[in-house]
Amino acid sequence: MPLTDGTHAELTNFRPEMPAPQDFDAFWDQTLTEARALGGAVKTDRVTEQHLLRTVEVDDVRFPGWNGEPVAAWLLRPRDAEGPLPVVVTYIGYTGGRGLPTDHLFWSAAGYAQLVVDSRGQGHDTPDQDAGGGPQWAKGFMTRGIDSPENYYYRRLITDCVRAVDAVGELPGLDPERVIVAGGSQGGGLTIAVAGLTEVAAALPDVPFLCHFRRAAEVCGEGPYVELAEYLRWHSRHGVEPAFATLSYFDGVHFAQRATAPALFSVGLMDPICPPSTVYAAFNHYAGEDRTMTVWPFADHGGGHGSNSVAQLAWLRDRGLVPTT
Amino acid sequence: MPLTDGTHAELTNFRPEMPAPQDFDAFWDQTLTEARALGGAVKTDRVTEQHLLRTVEVDDVRFPGWNGEPVAAWLLRPRDAEGPLPVVVTYIGYTGGRGLPTDHLFWSAAGYAQLVVDSRGQGHDTPDQDAGGGPQWAKGFMTRGIDSPENYYYRRLITDCVRAVDAVGELPGLDPERVIVAGGSQGGGLTIAVAGLTEVAAALPDVPFLCHFRRAAEVCGEGPYVELAEYLRWHSRHGVEPAFATLSYFDGVHFAQRATAPALFSVGLMDPICPPSTVYAAFNHYAGEDRTMTVWPFADHGGGHGSNSVAQLAWLRDRGLVPTT
Amino acid sequence: MPLTDGTHAELTNFRPEMPAPQDFDAFWDQTLTEARALGGAVKTDRVTEQHLLRTVEVDDVRFPGWNGEPVAAWLLRPRDAEGPLPVVVTYIGYTGGRGLPTDHLFWSAAGYAQLVVDSRGQGHDTPDQDAGGGPQWAKGFMTRGIDSPENYYYRRLITDCVRAVDAVGELPGLDPERVIVAGGSQGGGLTIAVAGLTEVAAALPDVPFLCHFRRAAEVCGEGPYVELAEYLRWHSRHGVEPAFATLSYFDGVHFAQRATAPALFSVGLMDPICPPSTVYAAFNHYAGEDRTMTVWPFADHGGGHGSNSVAQLAWLRDRGLVPTT
Amino acid sequence: MPLTDGTHAELTNFRPEMPAPQDFDAFWDQTLTEARALGGAVKTDRVTEQHLLRTVEVDDVRFPGWNGEPVAAWLLRPRDAEGPLPVVVTYIGYTGGRGLPTDHLFWSAAGYAQLVVDSRGQGHDTPDQDAGGGPQWAKGFMTRGIDSPENYYYRRLITDCVRAVDAVGELPGLDPERVIVAGGSQGGGLTIAVAGLTEVAAALPDVPFLCHFRRAAEVCGEGPYVELAEYLRWHSRHGVEPAFATLSYFDGVHFAQRATAPALFSVGLMDPICPPSTVYAAFNHYAGEDRTMTVWPFADHGGGHGSNSVAQLAWLRDRGLVPTT
Amino acid sequence: MPLTDGTHAELTNFRPEMPAPQDFDAFWDQTLTEARALGGAVKTDRVTEQHLLRTVEVDDVRFPGWNGEPVAAWLLRPRDAEGPLPVVVTYIGYTGGRGLPTDHLFWSAAGYAQLVVDSRGQGHDTPDQDAGGGPQWAKGFMTRGIDSPENYYYRRLITDCVRAVDAVGELPGLDPERVIVAGGSQGGGLTIAVAGLTEVAAALPDVPFLCHFRRAAEVCGEGPYVELAEYLRWHSRHGVEPAFATLSYFDGVHFAQRATAPALFSVGLMDPICPPSTVYAAFNHYAGEDRTMTVWPFADHGGGHGSNSVAQLAWLRDRGLVPTT
Amino acid sequence: MPLTDGTHAELTNFRPEMPAPQDFDAFWDQTLTEARALGGAVKTDRVTEQHLLRTVEVDDVRFPGWNGEPVAAWLLRPRDAEGPLPVVVTYIGYTGGRGLPTDHLFWSAAGYAQLVVDSRGQGHDTPDQDAGGGPQWAKGFMTRGIDSPENYYYRRLITDCVRAVDAVGELPGLDPERVIVAGGSQGGGLTIAVAGLTEVAAALPDVPFLCHFRRAAEVCGEGPYVELAEYLRWHSRHGVEPAFATLSYFDGVHFAQRATAPALFSVGLMDPICPPSTVYAAFNHYAGEDRTMTVWPFADHGGGHGSNSVAQLAWLRDRGLVPTT
Repeated sequence: MPLTDGTHAELTNFRPEMPAPQDFDAFWDQTLTEARALGGAVKTDRVTEQHLLRTVEVDDVRFPGWNGEPVAAWLLRPRDAEGPLPVVVTYIGYTGGRGLPTDHLFWSAAGYAQLVVDSRGQGHDTPDQDAGGGPQWAKGFMTRGIDSPENYYYRRLITDCVRAVDAVGELPGLDPERVIVAGGSQGGGLTIAVAGLTEVAAALPDVPFLCHFRRAAEVCGEGPYVELAEYLRWHSRHGVEPAFATLSYFDGVHFAQRATAPALFSVGLMDPICPPSTVYAAFNHYAGEDRTMTVWPFADHGGGHGSNSVAQLAWLRDRGLVPTT
Repeated sequence: MPLTDGTHAELTNFRPEMPAPQDFDAFWDQTLTEARALGGAVKTDRVTEQHLLRTVEVDDVRFPGWNGEPVAAWLLRPRDAEGPLPVVVTYIGYTGGRGLPTDHLFWSAAGYAQLVVDSRGQGHDTPDQDAGGGPQWAKGFMTRGIDSPENYYYRRLITDCVRAVDAVGELPGLDPERVIVAGGSQGGGLTIAVAGLTEVAAALPDVPFLCHFRRAAEVCGEGPYVELAEYLRWHSRHGVEPAFATLSYFDGVHFAQRATAPALFSVGLMDPICPPSTVYAAFNHYAGEDRTMTVWPFADHGGGHGSNSVAQLAWLRDRGLVPTT
Repeated sequence: MPLTDGTHAELTNFRPEMPAPQDFDAFWDQTLTEARALGGAVKTDRVTEQHLLRTVEVDDVRFPGWNGEPVAAWLLRPRDAEGPLPVVVTYIGYTGGRGLPTDHLFWSAAGYAQLVVDSRGQGHDTPDQDAGGGPQWAKGFMTRGIDSPENYYYRRLITDCVRAVDAVGELPGLDPERVIVAGGSQGGGLTIAVAGLTEVAAALPDVPFLCHFRRAAEVCGEGPYVELAEYLRWHSRHGVEPAFATLSYFDGVHFAQRATAPALFSVGLMDPICPPSTVYAAFNHYAGEDRTMTVWPFADHGGGHGSNSVAQLAWLRDRGLVPTT
Repeated sequence: MPLTDGTHAELTNFRPEMPAPQDFDAFWDQTLTEARALGGAVKTDRVTEQHLLRTVEVDDVRFPGWNGEPVAAWLLRPRDAEGPLPVVVTYIGYTGGRGLPTDHLFWSAAGYAQLVVDSRGQGHDTPDQDAGGGPQWAKGFMTRGIDSPENYYYRRLITDCVRAVDAVGELPGLDPERVIVAGGSQGGGLTIAVAGLTEVAAALPDVPFLCHFRRAAEVCGEGPYVELAEYLRWHSRHGVEPAFATLSYFDGVHFAQRATAPALFSVGLMDPICPPSTVYAAFNHYAGEDRTMTVWPFADHGGGHGSNSVAQLAWLRDRGLVPTT
Repeated sequence: MPLTDGTHAELTNFRPEMPAPQDFDAFWDQTLTEARALGGAVKTDRVTEQHLLRTVEVDDVRFPGWNGEPVAAWLLRPRDAEGPLPVVVTYIGYTGGRGLPTDHLFWSAAGYAQLVVDSRGQGHDTPDQDAGGGPQWAKGFMTRGIDSPENYYYRRLITDCVRAVDAVGELPGLDPERVIVAGGSQGGGLTIAVAGLTEVAAALPDVPFLCHFRRAAEVCGEGPYVELAEYLRWHSRHGVEPAFATLSYFDGVHFAQRATAPALFSVGLMDPICPPSTVYAAFNHYAGEDRTMTVWPFADHGGGHGSNSVAQLAWLRDRGLVPTT
Repeated sequence: MPLTDGTHAELTNFRPEMPAPQDFDAFWDQTLTEARALGGAVKTDRVTEQHLLRTVEVDDVRFPGWNGEPVAAWLLRPRDAEGPLPVVVTYIGYTGGRGLPTDHLFWSAAGYAQLVVDSRGQGHDTPDQDAGGGPQWAKGFMTRGIDSPENYYYRRLITDCVRAVDAVGELPGLDPERVIVAGGSQGGGLTIAVAGLTEVAAALPDVPFLCHFRRAAEVCGEGPYVELAEYLRWHSRHGVEPAFATLSYFDGVHFAQRATAPALFSVGLMDPICPPSTVYAAFNHYAGEDRTMTVWPFADHGGGHGSNSVAQLAWLRDRGLVPTT
């Protein structure tokens, strides 16, 4: 995709008026309060040997998420590290789930603990029981339960993601004051959501998904936003505004308006999956004053790849968010 | 295709200056006068049994079209209906022709008579002898005889379509005062043409084709307008303006400027085949005051599918164009 | 797609050894017994006026399906028909659900009653609560609950489809001795399943889906079978044979081996979505002696389109399955 | 396209039984006799100056073709050449017609005269009046008039091509005893047809089209043979065998069975437009004993490009078919 | 590609500020001075017989190019022409090289001599030793040696192209005062470069490549400019501005700013490979007063095909640049 | 891509007769002898701090490769590991080079040292001076210098790869008796080559490229083998067999015939880039008795992704190739 979603200058100034629903905060307060009220234990199971790893200690974690249901996660940290360690809670891109621990070796190699949170339904280890059933969804998760904010899939997933931050306090050796949330694509959208809903030390959303749904549905020609456009195509009669009403409780722009932790975003100016205008819509509304955008001008949805991770380490170091030796 | 042909607001105001050729009316007067002068009988053949149908009465019709040549049509009506019935004359999308009677069961189920007009050359039952031979046409019908308005394929087809309305008066049980013309895509373009050339009670053009040819040739990347762009590519030396000169006698915008019957248009804002700007160009020029656009915001060329038909029934009911019980 | 799945001659002889799981019949007996034991009323709501129809009487039906849950259906029949009428129970292609009554006017026009069964989850009106949650499914319904026969999506949908036949007996004016099951693509696969699980008067599966899953996963490059291949790609480590083990309880070939009603299949020899070899695998195993294949040699997944419907009317007439006048 | 239509060894032996219709010869005798009986003058108009050429003399020719209608051609020859010259009659690939004289400078540069025959309807200068009108054709020329051998488009075009050879005798300075017919793709198919219908000194069919229609319709996924497959898809009910019956009068395999002039074919083993099996079907049936196949093993429909022309010059030289100095 | 790169009116006024690097002229002076200082003989080898041609005399030429390395060329001229002849030096499109002499018969047929210059590395006969090795290039030539102006591939190729004009003076029978440079696509870009670097009588750049690299990298979705965008994607961290710094020594816009010979450009307004805005950027900066743009409004990268050549002959005739008889 | 390259059973038996050129061993002896004779020092530069890593020690290495030229590599090992460590020498997939150290954290996390070898020309840090210049190569590296075995690109790259194994002996803390070679795609092809040319403890080629070039050129429709098919298309006249003659010195099948180290291959049965038949051709010729194929039946070129790495750790453990604690 060439540069069809605006020049860098245009994007820098793209900050559309987008008020959240009046009861946005109430909706989320209630959602999180209910989930937390259900309590539930955090369980860990040491699996380092099983994965034949040596420099990394790995735990298979189950923490209570939405409805108190157990959500899977991997906890990785440098072997024999003395804590408490700063911990990077990472969320996963669209479909696939947490994968294997060996897919996630970056943060522990840099001395951090990392909690890799499974995406319910999308992976192997965390079921998602579709509460409402709901009317037709197109293929995929984007439209599951879109009939109401209560039933929408991302209500459950975002709750899991917030509860993952809660779980850090239950895990020995981690420093709950230094929780960094991070992720790319869907993981980036979840990062913004969590930063808007709970206290974290820093947020690292890369090429984030789940932002400015209306524009995304209108301009995207590939990727999961198209699931939304297809749903709207088949529900033109009555379904368009109700769908956007549901989505307004989950839009990254509204979470960004509430997030205050220092944040390092990244964006690819030729990204056809998460168009740069939708990323800037969230970034330009981000409430935290310490916010930075890493721009990859010719990048597609891959963004800065490995170079971006290195940039994140440096940015954290500059803010003192480093493992103590 | 995402929303690349303008927002709803821009489209609503898209009304380019497009004067018809000075002799436009003369050209069509002469064309229709000649065709009507040739006369010819309307023949019907009852085929209900043959198609094993029971609630619908079906006639295989031949009526005189361009040059007095017999044009095939299906006439469907509710069995044992007492007339005179309002009749929906429908025109067909690009290629395929009238198909089978069982492909057209909607209007009779709603109590209307329906006359389904074959498209000469495009179907099985109505030959089209190419009068002029003409220079190279690209594949398809869009450029057949484009060397002159006299030889252009759509001169013959539009004449057939007007003559179909004439034929209603010859068919027993139908009410010639209550002729509704209708169709989608090519059928929508023909609907506008007929409404601009003869008296009808209402017009129902869906996602109409054959409107604002110049813009269509410039912006379309798929569908039959591309035949036109390819022809112009290969006739760049001398052929571009002559081709547009020919097409100006067949542009839906000019027919719309002359059409006064109440009209219900529909449009898909993500339609890559009949781009919404070309549909609005015709709609915004439509001369009748009672005109409505049904907008399907995320639709492609399928428009509102079945929901659109239901909307049409309601719109007709609101205007009293219903079968008397 | 050209003719890459074998010549007509090769296909005619394609009858791979495919034994069903030993407890196949037990599994389905138990499944259906449980569903029937839950009982539940069949409800109808006359909606003819609402849809502005005149020659057709339409009821919005809710009948008890899997787990006794209400499943939506449309019941259409000729207005003022004197029953009892033979009834065509139709199942729907992949995604979309029962749509609007006006999408289904063929059978009533031919004098039959028709019960159009919604597909749970795929449409607007019948929710599907995913019982198990299950591990990762790829996009779509093909892999929902594929972790066990008990949780698999099609267990619920097929049960609904059988229960639709049961419901005929509760609907006044219909003849439960003359139930014809029919459908194309997914609807064709469901047709075979129902014919293998309960008594019907005839089966009309067109270009059926859900047959010979292993071959389909290996040779399909487009359509919903690809969902299966993608799931298997991501579950290569442990998931391949368990998935096929689940699918063996839902394979059209095994249902065909148990179905005895007269059957008229159709197949497109260039169908890339439901490859002809998978259709013939079911057809060549079909237990009923009165079985016929309508071959559309150059057809893709569209099969014979409207021509096929006409062929079905004639085939039913030849077997005396016609509305009495 | 990779090598999916057989290995070189398999192709060399591909010689399917394909008897021509019994009245094949009678059909063509009558067709050509009628055309020749109509007579008509060959006219030339010197246009060298107009095209600003200097080493080539160019005439714009009109010769009587099918139905005595004037067919356009370019005659090019070396300026000031003393004749009589051997002449290469060339036929054109699908769509485009004879183009400009400057598109055809190869043969005159090698000292030959060349007569470039326009393809009726496909170019700018030779109209094709569709005699029969006929039922639906899909886009393009492949199915025009396919309802009967009498009406089929290629009956008219092949007659033109044979009459072009006849016209050589009327053109001063050319040697009617040394007529070489040549062309690529459609031009190659026409070359074989002419070699099977009249006396020529040599034939040079490159990557020929119009051979073994049935196999072509079954295996082709792109190019004009697909027009045929699409027509057959839409005429499955009654139209398949009638169409092949018509085509059997125009199949290059049958013309090859009657052609005796020395022939140099060429083929690309990865040609997706004119699959190598169809080319070999004609070659392996070619009646002339002096026949050679130039194989371009990794070529697509471009065949050997310029290298092939050089090979043709050498092959003609080896057979004494050279301009006398 | 539809008309997505601006309307004709917008393009006519597209003249972005684009200053050349300060040492642009010095860089090229030094480059050419060094190449010329190395001297080297021009060698010719008569190959007319070998190619079996008669009206054209063909020499296989080797002239000294960059670093004094021998560069291959074909010299074609009318047989027995009395000179001195005006000579058209032609450069070749991206990849493929000079091909065969029989691929280039147009100019000699019109009475001109033609020198067809091979593209080093891209063809069969002129090696290109990559001097620097350099860091990663993506596939193709666009990024070879992009680490510095000294190492960039086009430094070597453009030097060859200028030296081809120098070589004309060494070739008997040619008129060095009447050198016309010409080419399409890459050949068009090279034409502009040569016209900006040395004295020529006229320049004929068709649909030129190598102009306004930055815009091209931003808007192109296909063709060799994409090689550049891909390189920039993978070198986002440090490589973007250095790459554009290198390219600024090779941008057709800067050469155009220095070129004064009469020039006939051509452009396709739907060209997706060399977008019209990049062509107009060069044209609108062209320093020569006698400059004309041939606009092919519906053309893709093929531009005006053969019609364009005819237009070039007429344009040259109008300027007296014709072979004397 | 569906399963079009043969079933598992067919592939298991695919072992075509493919003798190496007679002087194959001599060619490589001489090549390696010359390279080794040039000597050159191995240099290391500790860069751990620079990359902000903590559990991994990273050196930026330069070792002498082909022609004694410095080749870049990353050396990663667990911090504070006591050696000597077994070392995994890894080669990189097509284009991109060694990337960043943080792209390669798997092996050190499992306790191994890893030497990541840059691919000359394809990455940022190791230039490749094209020695011969050679005739036209198509885009990419597959055809660079294909005019002779001496000039072919892979001669230089494979020499680098062998010299990387030599370099292990110069690097403190590594165990030269326990060198494991590994890589995917191009890296897999290089792994087989190195295993055939020098002593190693084990080889782990995943979805290997560079095997059975002739079949690959014939059946591949995407990926870098297509570069080869395109080259052959354009060099059909004289270039096909010479190209295969060059390639026969680089075919993984011939290296496999000489390799004796225990080997664990992997293959995706739906891999369209490195078709399974080409992988099995090498595997079935592999000379070592301890050879295993991990089959991923529904995988494309991604093979087993992370699951494959875990399988490799277990396979090495079973052979005692583990870091001593």
